[in-house]
Amino acid sequence: MSFELHEECGVFGIWGDADAAQKAYWGTFSLQHRGQESGGLAVLDHGTLSVDKGMGLFQDAVPVKNRRGEAAIGHVRYSTTGESAEVNAQPLLMHTRFGPLALAHNGNLVNHESLRRELEHEGAIFQGTSDSEVLAHLLARSRQKEFQDALMEASQSLKGGFAFVLLTSDGLYGIRDPRGIRPLVLGRTHEGAWVLASETCALDMIDAVWVRDVKPGELICISSRGMESTMFHESEGQNACAFEVIYFSRPDSQLEGQSMHLKRRLLGQKLAEEAPAQADVVVGVPDSSLPAAMGYAEESGIPFDFGLVKNRYIARTFIAPKAEMRSQGVQLKLSAVTEVVEGKRVVLIDDSLVRGTTSRHIIRLLRRAGAREVHMRIASPPYLEPCHYGIDTSRAGELAARNLTVKELAEMVGADSLAFLSPEGLLGALGPQGWCLACFGKGYPVPIEEDVHAQ
Amino acid sequence: MSFELHEECGVFGIWGDADAAQKAYWGTFSLQHRGQESGGLAVLDHGTLSVDKGMGLFQDAVPVKNRRGEAAIGHVRYSTTGESAEVNAQPLLMHTRFGPLALAHNGNLVNHESLRRELEHEGAIFQGTSDSEVLAHLLARSRQKEFQDALMEASQSLKGGFAFVLLTSDGLYGIRDPRGIRPLVLGRTHEGAWVLASETCALDMIDAVWVRDVKPGELICISSRGMESTMFHESEGQNACAFEVIYFSRPDSQLEGQSMHLKRRLLGQKLAEEAPAQADVVVGVPDSSLPAAMGYAEESGIPFDFGLVKNRYIARTFIAPKAEMRSQGVQLKLSAVTEVVEGKRVVLIDDSLVRGTTSRHIIRLLRRAGAREVHMRIASPPYLEPCHYGIDTSRAGELAARNLTVKELAEMVGADSLAFLSPEGLLGALGPQGWCLACFGKGYPVPIEEDVHAQ
Amino acid sequence: MSFELHEECGVFGIWGDADAAQKAYWGTFSLQHRGQESGGLAVLDHGTLSVDKGMGLFQDAVPVKNRRGEAAIGHVRYSTTGESAEVNAQPLLMHTRFGPLALAHNGNLVNHESLRRELEHEGAIFQGTSDSEVLAHLLARSRQKEFQDALMEASQSLKGGFAFVLLTSDGLYGIRDPRGIRPLVLGRTHEGAWVLASETCALDMIDAVWVRDVKPGELICISSRGMESTMFHESEGQNACAFEVIYFSRPDSQLEGQSMHLKRRLLGQKLAEEAPAQADVVVGVPDSSLPAAMGYAEESGIPFDFGLVKNRYIARTFIAPKAEMRSQGVQLKLSAVTEVVEGKRVVLIDDSLVRGTTSRHIIRLLRRAGAREVHMRIASPPYLEPCHYGIDTSRAGELAARNLTVKELAEMVGADSLAFLSPEGLLGALGPQGWCLACFGKGYPVPIEEDVHAQ
Amino acid sequence: MSFELHEECGVFGIWGDADAAQKAYWGTFSLQHRGQESGGLAVLDHGTLSVDKGMGLFQDAVPVKNRRGEAAIGHVRYSTTGESAEVNAQPLLMHTRFGPLALAHNGNLVNHESLRRELEHEGAIFQGTSDSEVLAHLLARSRQKEFQDALMEASQSLKGGFAFVLLTSDGLYGIRDPRGIRPLVLGRTHEGAWVLASETCALDMIDAVWVRDVKPGELICISSRGMESTMFHESEGQNACAFEVIYFSRPDSQLEGQSMHLKRRLLGQKLAEEAPAQADVVVGVPDSSLPAAMGYAEESGIPFDFGLVKNRYIARTFIAPKAEMRSQGVQLKLSAVTEVVEGKRVVLIDDSLVRGTTSRHIIRLLRRAGAREVHMRIASPPYLEPCHYGIDTSRAGELAARNLTVKELAEMVGADSLAFLSPEGLLGALGPQGWCLACFGKGYPVPIEEDVHAQ
Repeated sequence: MSFELHEECGVFGIWGDADAAQKAYWGTFSLQHRGQESGGLAVLDHGTLSVDKGMGLFQDAVPVKNRRGEAAIGHVRYSTTGESAEVNAQPLLMHTRFGPLALAHNGNLVNHESLRRELEHEGAIFQGTSDSEVLAHLLARSRQKEFQDALMEASQSLKGGFAFVLLTSDGLYGIRDPRGIRPLVLGRTHEGAWVLASETCALDMIDAVWVRDVKPGELICISSRGMESTMFHESEGQNACAFEVIYFSRPDSQLEGQSMHLKRRLLGQKLAEEAPAQADVVVGVPDSSLPAAMGYAEESGIPFDFGLVKNRYIARTFIAPKAEMRSQGVQLKLSAVTEVVEGKRVVLIDDSLVRGTTSRHIIRLLRRAGAREVHMRIASPPYLEPCHYGIDTSRAGELAARNLTVKELAEMVGADSLAFLSPEGLLGALGPQGWCLACFGKGYPVPIEEDVHAQ
Repeated sequence: MSFELHEECGVFGIWGDADAAQKAYWGTFSLQHRGQESGGLAVLDHGTLSVDKGMGLFQDAVPVKNRRGEAAIGHVRYSTTGESAEVNAQPLLMHTRFGPLALAHNGNLVNHESLRRELEHEGAIFQGTSDSEVLAHLLARSRQKEFQDALMEASQSLKGGFAFVLLTSDGLYGIRDPRGIRPLVLGRTHEGAWVLASETCALDMIDAVWVRDVKPGELICISSRGMESTMFHESEGQNACAFEVIYFSRPDSQLEGQSMHLKRRLLGQKLAEEAPAQADVVVGVPDSSLPAAMGYAEESGIPFDFGLVKNRYIARTFIAPKAEMRSQGVQLKLSAVTEVVEGKRVVLIDDSLVRGTTSRHIIRLLRRAGAREVHMRIASPPYLEPCHYGIDTSRAGELAARNLTVKELAEMVGADSLAFLSPEGLLGALGPQGWCLACFGKGYPVPIEEDVHAQ
Repeated sequence: MSFELHEECGVFGIWGDADAAQKAYWGTFSLQHRGQESGGLAVLDHGTLSVDKGMGLFQDAVPVKNRRGEAAIGHVRYSTTGESAEVNAQPLLMHTRFGPLALAHNGNLVNHESLRRELEHEGAIFQGTSDSEVLAHLLARSRQKEFQDALMEASQSLKGGFAFVLLTSDGLYGIRDPRGIRPLVLGRTHEGAWVLASETCALDMIDAVWVRDVKPGELICISSRGMESTMFHESEGQNACAFEVIYFSRPDSQLEGQSMHLKRRLLGQKLAEEAPAQADVVVGVPDSSLPAAMGYAEESGIPFDFGLVKNRYIARTFIAPKAEMRSQGVQLKLSAVTEVVEGKRVVLIDDSLVRGTTSRHIIRLLRRAGAREVHMRIASPPYLEPCHYGIDTSRAGELAARNLTVKELAEMVGADSLAFLSPEGLLGALGPQGWCLACFGKGYPVPIEEDVHAQ
Repeated sequence: MSFELHEECGVFGIWGDADAAQKAYWGTFSLQHRGQESGGLAVLDHGTLSVDKGMGLFQDAVPVKNRRGEAAIGHVRYSTTGESAEVNAQPLLMHTRFGPLALAHNGNLVNHESLRRELEHEGAIFQGTSDSEVLAHLLARSRQKEFQDALMEASQSLKGGFAFVLLTSDGLYGIRDPRGIRPLVLGRTHEGAWVLASETCALDMIDAVWVRDVKPGELICISSRGMESTMFHESEGQNACAFEVIYFSRPDSQLEGQSMHLKRRLLGQKLAEEAPAQADVVVGVPDSSLPAAMGYAEESGIPFDFGLVKNRYIARTFIAPKAEMRSQGVQLKLSAVTEVVEGKRVVLIDDSLVRGTTSRHIIRLLRRAGAREVHMRIASPPYLEPCHYGIDTSRAGELAARNLTVKELAEMVGADSLAFLSPEGLLGALGPQGWCLACFGKGYPVPIEEDVHAQ
């Protein structure tokens, strides 16, 4: 649910632009929705690599100022492994035999614990607890003479869902996991500089154009020799994260050339087909569920309206103190518009349901504003299994759908009825194949190491 | 336009509740949209009056913490007169012969300069430059023995659009200007405590119910004797600010019992009647113009869609540095959804147009995303005259509609066509009478003193 | 002692210098020892008066930056009346019929409560709780047409120990109380600009020369017409604060042309005459008591040494948390040098003794470092009565000497012997007349109003 | 000179005390004079190691609060190698095959560049640029099974002047360089816990007693098995840093059981013997040169007095802006006491002279206050060579005595005469052998690698 699941991270990289540092700033800024715990920027200026990073929103972590540089990478983070500490903020800056190296990572390595144990055994020293350092150690220890070869070799040891961007004084590098679980796109500015980013909205922000998505298992090297593509892993087919479409990506982003906004409308339409309701008005949870709500309204013929409004000014960083406030949490963020819902049978659309607590609060808001009935419809299937590829479900607490029947869930959230989109309906909207649906109980495309417990 | 006109202030007051301080906190918090320059809270705890206030968003200016108190008033401010300095943050705390007094003010006194000159001549000392101190000096100098009588006498000297809440150790007081230009509502908690607020959304926030709007020219006194109403000025009819409906108030608020959200949809419908367009999609500027866009779509039959999305994380306080960024300002806040507008004829709905610069940027965004035609429709009449009753037009720079024909305006913003709602259409949606339409050139209901230049 | 009594405030003013703002900054900075709770600077730049102020050390309260201005006043404060709140930080900036006015005050008015009651009765509004506003209200209400005449009239109502500097767009004004209790000196830069300051060290800081001390009851007006002196009160003889010499003033300052450093050595010599001791070494409490310790050593022939050293880095603002630390408070600030005191009979010199707790801790330090005997000698008489003229004794808690005999005091602080300088010995060092010795039980030179209790 | 040379770092460690975290806080706090750029504390609490660190004074970098822990190490830093960045703040926390490790370092490794190159070649990744990481990498790569053996092996590779304290969940470790250049002492609390510290003043602060100085080349291991001593390097005789005595150590500290304060008085006496002056008063630069000034006065018979006073409140962190202020830098920190020096022939004692700029400013202050003659006497020999063992001479700019004759130096600082203590005089005071006098041109006891240039 909009306030319950968290994307892990966003990455950005640009090489060969006189204004690279500024463009990386605004490109990373546009990925803010992918992580709000820390942010950072590594800039290569006249061959010297330096990093600015800190805790909080990107705009707070990295001061806006005139930066110069011919290349840069950026990162926003919502920790999945490792503590939420400044030492884990990225890009990481490290000094290896290849010289200074900056690294930014989105995703999760399922084999990072065994890799780390092995590396430590060989004498490696880790700064922090995140899994992102592992790649750096692997390449520092590689016997390959060239950085690019060492990176290739190191990448082959990684398992999981991941996208890395790396910056040295010689080049910008991007790698995407062999299943293409985590997104990474390749773009280009009108002046010809190459860009890597987690989403296309970062390309739009700096007026760059989308070239293509980085392929599963691909290593992109961008340097004075131009852009080179090599595969560090044979393709085994794609399993892109369905949650990028359902919730995480910005509505104006495209994944594999497909519009997130349109896909979400389609999810709403499928949902209306599968789970109709007798009602007077369709209300979506703002902002992320509005397209699905519109789609539901279109398909069902029930009018759409803005029955919930968001408080425009509530700070993301606003920490509600103690017991008293937590119950008010949702009320601070959302209000019901009485005239829209009073005396009405309301279809309430949300993109997902994880713990259910937020839903309960929203339904209470609607009822207090006079809604006669509330029929909750979720534009994705029940969330059953933890993600091991970079989405934080640890903070989501127990997965409500795992322990309760739909009927019990409806009772728990206080809805008159509740229904989810089916996995088939989801695939109907997304396209029949190429997706990771592990969290909906459809199997983990990359095997999870035995000793990895949900983090 | 959403980013160009600024509401002046919001006020809140509560008396006789064991949890008054906390309720005032959250009540004022919900009025954040009415002012983001400074905020404050004055609390009466066991008879002792103290103030917490500061610059910035309310949540930054006033720390969240456990406050105790039997009564409290709150304030958020966007300066209209006086400099934007901490000395002007409210509530003001002053010591008069009646003891300590806290005061919070929304609006503007048209005769404050002459009143101030007169008071200074008599030896009064002003702390700052805001017009809010004038009321305190008038009542401190009144020969009346009782505070309430002194306040009544002092109120009679004030001219303009204003709402004041005052707090002493004996009572909570509210006054509204004789024309009812600025809003002030009266509510009550379930436990029976009385509440005053600029908007009903503040009542909802603390689970209080709306009793009625304070009458033009009314003085409300709330004390251990309960609530008493007296008129400090005979009613001369109401002229409520139309911009409260068009843009300022929160969509879930009600003015005189009327829903802002529904009125805005109605404005969009009227606009579609008056100014139809040949187009494929209706897009509203988020968030404030979405209801009008929906209304336009309903009336015109052209489908509504989310063609513009807001960056969820951009801080209100985010200051774009210098030249470079300013041009990016709109782009940081909004993005166009390519798939919604590409190759389409777009009707772009905004609630108002003041300077026109934001509109120009938005239209450029839409065209860059592939919009074939952009037909701009404004859900209010051309903004022609500065407001003297509490809305900041000084910062809006020159009023574009004053100097340019509609055709020239269309050219300036880069629209294929441009049309405004007529004043008649506006009244058609709002109701035929009881409104201030001064800014639309329909005359100032309270005469402006000659020496008052637009502030 | 050094850590127990607090000076009240320091004031500075300069008029007619192209670099007045910077000079006022550094001049006020050099008065930092007179108050560390808040600081501020009011600058007149091209006729516009503005104020920068805040809590804490001057350098923290007022940012160092390039300021321009033709005149300025500064203030450092250690509150004596009024709460320690930002609203009481000075200079106060007020708007009266004479225009903007900045005011800075050192001292205490014994009749401020009755004046305030009277002014409030007449309709005056006070911003805060300090007594400094009273003067502004008196002059704003004066019937005099000219500011200078109004100030003269207003000054005549003030009773107590005080020095004020005021700044308007027309002039810089300084007044000193009729008994000359609080200090105020007049100086001049080499370029001819006039300067007012609490101490001569502020003149040295900006390379200005001392002209003379402002006379008791004198009003100094500095404007484009030059410097004018008038007496607002007939001279009744001087009673300068003896504690300025004993402890408060900087050792490099001069009062009435007399060196503080030399006076303190003389106090030590007198003390050695009056209260000899059989001992091996003389140790002073750094830094303020070192000159007296040297004087004692010279007169007694017992060698002086640095038996106590100060921690160079402990922040003034360092707040020791809770119980645990408080006992360590002295230990954080001071250390004993074992080799100097081990096995020795030590004469410990302090400038004064108020509560005695610090002395107890210091003596414990010395004993722990091996001192065989500790003979405490105080370079001033027993402190018996609270000050009503601007020195904070409220924070000093009970005055130990008031309730205990010297023998009991010696026991309490853990000294083998204890002796104070006699009032006669004090006058012997200071000069026979012209001093306020009220705190030593020698009578209040300005009568205290009945309802004023020690603050 | 007091404001020109900077100590490098201070370290502290404690093991086996229920209040270890608090004691480490105050122990490290008392070493503040050894480094003000950053500070940190690593605490072992119930087997978990965590670090608090930051930039600035220790009290600002590490918040005062209730910390619990059975062991802890602390660090204050003034960078000698590596940039002055937060990444270099210590203790460093690292994760190796032995588990978490915290490390704090004082000194400089002369072979750190070659060690680092070698380690990077083998795949090591460095976090920052300081030389302190080298030890950790050496021990992480050692083939030894036990941490203590690995540390022993790693220590044998280090060359230079250094003292390290390390903390793991199993023990506290301390090592001192084979020449004993940098200080490290061993102490014990009354409850029996072992303590390591750069100076004995840290033992005094927590009421621990001095046991002995750690031996050159010694490795101390403190664990549940008690304290064990092993030598990682055969003793080659000691060369303790003479500057620890001359200036760096706190006057109440002891080195090899000798009092710093008494040694400094002795230096002053030797100086008076070697370089007498015809003068009326001896004045020392506060605070560090006062003991030497007293010694000079004793030996010469010329009276000592406080002719210079320090501004008690100037913040260490106070950054004087730009040109204007820099010339005022000394004036902000020091003032001359006119009455002490006016018309007098002054002997000015300083502990050392590096660049000479501060001396020039001080002499100017004295002359402006009326000094007739100023005879400068320096209580150490001319500073001729950069230190490679942990003292920052890079910031001292050029070493004045290297390029100028004593006569030219006298002219440069504006003294009527100038003289230094001879190396022989220095050894006369310190004891005939066991000292490093490299900076006075007497040879580097540990050879400097060719490619190491002064840092």
